Amino acid sequence: MNIRFFNAKIFKTKENHTFEIVNGQLWVRDNKIIYIGDGLDIQEVFDKGEDPIVWDREIDVEQNLLMPGFKNAHTHTAMTFLRSFADDLPLQSWLFDSVFPREGQLTPDDVYHLDILGIMEYLTSGITSNFDMYFFPPQNAQASVDCGFRTVQTSGLNDFGGDTALMEENYNICNSLGELSSFIIGFHAEYTTKKELMEDIAALAQKVKSPLFAHNSETESEVKDCIKRYGKTPTQMMDSLGMFEYGGGGYHCVYMSEEDIDIFKKRGLYAVTNPCSNLKLASGIAPVKRFLDEGIPMGIGTDGPASNNSLDFFKEMYLTATLAKVREKDAACVSADQVLYMATCDGAHCMGLDDCDRLEVGKKADLIMLDLQQPNMQPENNIIKNIVYAGSKQNVKMTMVNGKILYEDMKFNIGFDPKEVYAKANEIIGRMK
Amino acid sequence: MNIRFFNAKIFKTKENHTFEIVNGQLWVRDNKIIYIGDGLDIQEVFDKGEDPIVWDREIDVEQNLLMPGFKNAHTHTAMTFLRSFADDLPLQSWLFDSVFPREGQLTPDDVYHLDILGIMEYLTSGITSNFDMYFFPPQNAQASVDCGFRTVQTSGLNDFGGDTALMEENYNICNSLGELSSFIIGFHAEYTTKKELMEDIAALAQKVKSPLFAHNSETESEVKDCIKRYGKTPTQMMDSLGMFEYGGGGYHCVYMSEEDIDIFKKRGLYAVTNPCSNLKLASGIAPVKRFLDEGIPMGIGTDGPASNNSLDFFKEMYLTATLAKVREKDAACVSADQVLYMATCDGAHCMGLDDCDRLEVGKKADLIMLDLQQPNMQPENNIIKNIVYAGSKQNVKMTMVNGKILYEDMKFNIGFDPKEVYAKANEIIGRMK
Repeated sequence: MNIRFFNAKIFKTKENHTFEIVNGQLWVRDNKIIYIGDGLDIQEVFDKGEDPIVWDREIDVEQNLLMPGFKNAHTHTAMTFLRSFADDLPLQSWLFDSVFPREGQLTPDDVYHLDILGIMEYLTSGITSNFDMYFFPPQNAQASVDCGFRTVQTSGLNDFGGDTALMEENYNICNSLGELSSFIIGFHAEYTTKKELMEDIAALAQKVKSPLFAHNSETESEVKDCIKRYGKTPTQMMDSLGMFEYGGGGYHCVYMSEEDIDIFKKRGLYAVTNPCSNLKLASGIAPVKRFLDEGIPMGIGTDGPASNNSLDFFKEMYLTATLAKVREKDAACVSADQVLYMATCDGAHCMGLDDCDRLEVGKKADLIMLDLQQPNMQPENNIIKNIVYAGSKQNVKMTMVNGKILYEDMKFNIGFDPKEVYAKANEIIGRMK
Repeated sequence: MNIRFFNAKIFKTKENHTFEIVNGQLWVRDNKIIYIGDGLDIQEVFDKGEDPIVWDREIDVEQNLLMPGFKNAHTHTAMTFLRSFADDLPLQSWLFDSVFPREGQLTPDDVYHLDILGIMEYLTSGITSNFDMYFFPPQNAQASVDCGFRTVQTSGLNDFGGDTALMEENYNICNSLGELSSFIIGFHAEYTTKKELMEDIAALAQKVKSPLFAHNSETESEVKDCIKRYGKTPTQMMDSLGMFEYGGGGYHCVYMSEEDIDIFKKRGLYAVTNPCSNLKLASGIAPVKRFLDEGIPMGIGTDGPASNNSLDFFKEMYLTATLAKVREKDAACVSADQVLYMATCDGAHCMGLDDCDRLEVGKKADLIMLDLQQPNMQPENNIIKNIVYAGSKQNVKMTMVNGKILYEDMKFNIGFDPKEVYAKANEIIGRMK
């Protein structure tokens, strides 16, 4: 599809990690942005070798905002079936009595359909790609590809099933499903994985030269237990096994030692924060200000819908900024600009999606339109701060992935009927009760 | 208007502060609920003396949810003009350099228009009434009445202007504007109000037999300074002046002593929590679990849009539950049911709106329709938990106040053109820059 957006406010990312908003047009040809400007210098574009374009659609943005889609840098998408299934319970009983026994009953086909439900929710929230850890990565990746959604799969391998041979197979499958799907090496967490298996995983990451991600230092007890076991924190342990030879990072990163911070800096690792989940499971508040002060790049993730319980990036962005403020007792720390940089650029880099990080000629057209003509976005004192501190899913008018509009004015264009997706999710959990 | 809702899920409040969801019809005649049931016992209704009804509208709810509107139990609505005007600043500089100098320039007419912008945002979030403290209460109340929105005004009196004679005048005006407007005695806070003025305010509350509300123990330094001044906490000080003879309560209530808790229990005071504002201004996390354990009734408020920056009740409800969990390191504490009870019933009682607290025959028709056919509300494992933990403004299909639909399918029906409301808000802040 070739789409010309005009009469738009356009969100541009500057070199110093800040933003500016310009008025103009943005053109998408197939899956890429080919022009951003005032529309007056069109001849120049064609002089650079672009063919004349037949527009499939010309969209009047009505002075609303075009911006890069949000990158959900940690989630377990297909856990949609357990949303609100067993909340307000102590963590252990939630996990062992409610979650694990039902996850054990999931089929690859179940996961395919549950993933689609999650993708729909991502689209309503302006999320254009996810970094997904769950059972059956090839089925999750296929669901994404079939919807037109961009996914980066990783493995949740641990002692309770699977091995690195299967992970390598999944790595190869997910990396061969076309440009919407990729795979980065990962595993569940130190506390669920024996040392020997972690060594195998490190060897695989080195063999395929992949970054490596895992849950890391999500709870205080996880860190204490690891120190008891190995005399090392999870970060130190993973690093000592050679897991970060090609970079990577950690999900959650709530309880970090000075040495952990040093390892993240030395290895160029990403800290992915999951504020909603960390609150709801009573895990704690991550040291976001510290990461930023140290120059550690950060992504933001929703975590899975069973622990969150939504896949709402506006909630995550709001909390990334405001929880830091209350943690540090400093209303000035962690700005809206810093959070939007994580939500778009750093998140994309963390997921290996360097060509989806910003609105720029040549980048992939993973972008969203935010409705500024709603009361929560008025007055327009500062659009950046309005997005982070007052924005909501309701402001998402359109979500485009890889040049295709997948969601527009509350309607989905993913090739699946929402009612059937909902019915299937209810049937899957209904079967298990 | 007479409106018959059918094919609905209906949210009913039970005596033990929990809820059940039943299928059926809900009828509104003029401003009241006159029937809830399966529609099969209609004759019985008329046998009880109801006249036959000519329906103005019959609405197929399509198995979505009708529930009581949310009560915003603390806000400064007309601060919309300062939304995102000066964030990510230290509290003192935000207040003294940005907020106060501009508030001083507001006219009554400005406040009227800025209030309408806030009301529009309330409606998008399912809020059907507000407990509002700001300059010019009669103008704020008039804006509400003109929109058809329900408001409870209070005074923000302090040492920087006004007196109790003006407050009494405002009390009389706001209580005479019809059933959508009322006034409860209040003042800004101990830290902005001399003892002599607080004594006058206490005398006025006793004279008119009103409950009394004020900001209370929002920050640690506020409490420390009060103890230094009087040897008493703000709660103790206010109580010692006879301010709570007819009940009332406090806004924020983050730093509470044992004796404060005792006073709240003894006087039957309401603790109104404002979690978004408390995070964003780095004030702290309120002891919500403690209030609930002690049986202290609670309301939830957005605070003003300059400190929040939105007027989004879903964000507040989510944080009321989840901040308690992280504060107490207990994922099981403060349930979704408890939060919804605050958001609807306790909030209404706190504001003196006993006839707006639940869906029941004879109660005022302050109610909302939530769209359950969206991905964040599926599967329907538990609708109550879905609302609190996964709900968003996007799920609000309709907001009805006093029997009149003011917001439906993202369109407003308040007698004002949104574009003009936005333009006016931009003009007001533009004038001040």
